[in-house]
Amino acid sequence: MKILGIDPGSRITGYGVISKEGNRLIHVDNGAIFTDKAKDFPARLERIYRGLAEIIETYRPDAVAVENIFFSNNVQSALKLGQARGAAIVAGVIAGLPVFEYTALQVKQAVVGNGKAAKQQVQQMIKVLLNLPEIAQEDASDALAVAVCHANSSVLSGMLKIMDKVGKTNA
Amino acid sequence: MKILGIDPGSRITGYGVISKEGNRLIHVDNGAIFTDKAKDFPARLERIYRGLAEIIETYRPDAVAVENIFFSNNVQSALKLGQARGAAIVAGVIAGLPVFEYTALQVKQAVVGNGKAAKQQVQQMIKVLLNLPEIAQEDASDALAVAVCHANSSVLSGMLKIMDKVGKTNA
Repeated sequence: MKILGIDPGSRITGYGVISKEGNRLIHVDNGAIFTDKAKDFPARLERIYRGLAEIIETYRPDAVAVENIFFSNNVQSALKLGQARGAAIVAGVIAGLPVFEYTALQVKQAVVGNGKAAKQQVQQMIKVLLNLPEIAQEDASDALAVAVCHANSSVLSGMLKIMDKVGKTNA
Repeated sequence: MKILGIDPGSRITGYGVISKEGNRLIHVDNGAIFTDKAKDFPARLERIYRGLAEIIETYRPDAVAVENIFFSNNVQSALKLGQARGAAIVAGVIAGLPVFEYTALQVKQAVVGNGKAAKQQVQQMIKVLLNLPEIAQEDASDALAVAVCHANSSVLSGMLKIMDKVGKTNA
């Protein structure tokens, strides 16, 4: 199973692709899409959409994972972030992929085992978990983290389904 | 020239299609896309995107106009609105259409001639201008208003271009 994690932003959108083979997580690619501040907002959303569509075309992931945002400094930045997020999610949806949302707490819990972990701890753990030569660019690292969160959550939900079946068989 | 106006919202997205023949504005269609509150956000954004893609496919507009939002009740609603707006703009962008943004002030100025006009005045004027049998649904009416704003702005910018040419020829 291949997972594309996305950390959307109106200026920088991070992405990270990982593949899960059995219980092993393998790093495939990570990077960031930069938008031109001088351009109008529709052009910047187009850049985000097309950049992600290209990543999806290249790696053909089975699922997309995005961090669910509830907070922002102010209404202005929330509107901008929301639009970037909308463009990113639509890129997944149009490609026919299921899109999963995780809170920052779930991501930190899944990666570090502590929902209140510091950002640096998450970055360090992502480097170790995915055997990266160095800590990835900030937004790319966040994107890898949400992908790892989905990979671990699917293991869990897969286990729960099996346990559920076993339970029913035993009943 | 055919213009698609959009009033994006995470629950209701209004749309309005008008056509400009010479100086006349003709109503083509208007309506609203409703999303299911019970569904997750990616599914709701998919509904907005696909709904608008269908409208674009049906009417093949030459341009898309969207109201530029700067205010919102709070960060939560700004994030939701932003995502709906992102999905809507991407629908235009993917169809290869130019997407124009107008402030509420510009829309009111263009429709009523007064940037501080009340919402009801705008709705009433849209009914009269486009010869509608009755006032359109609120979000659809707002979408028609931003389309009318673009139609009038393009007349103006077209006139300015001509005046510029005349000026250069005379110089």
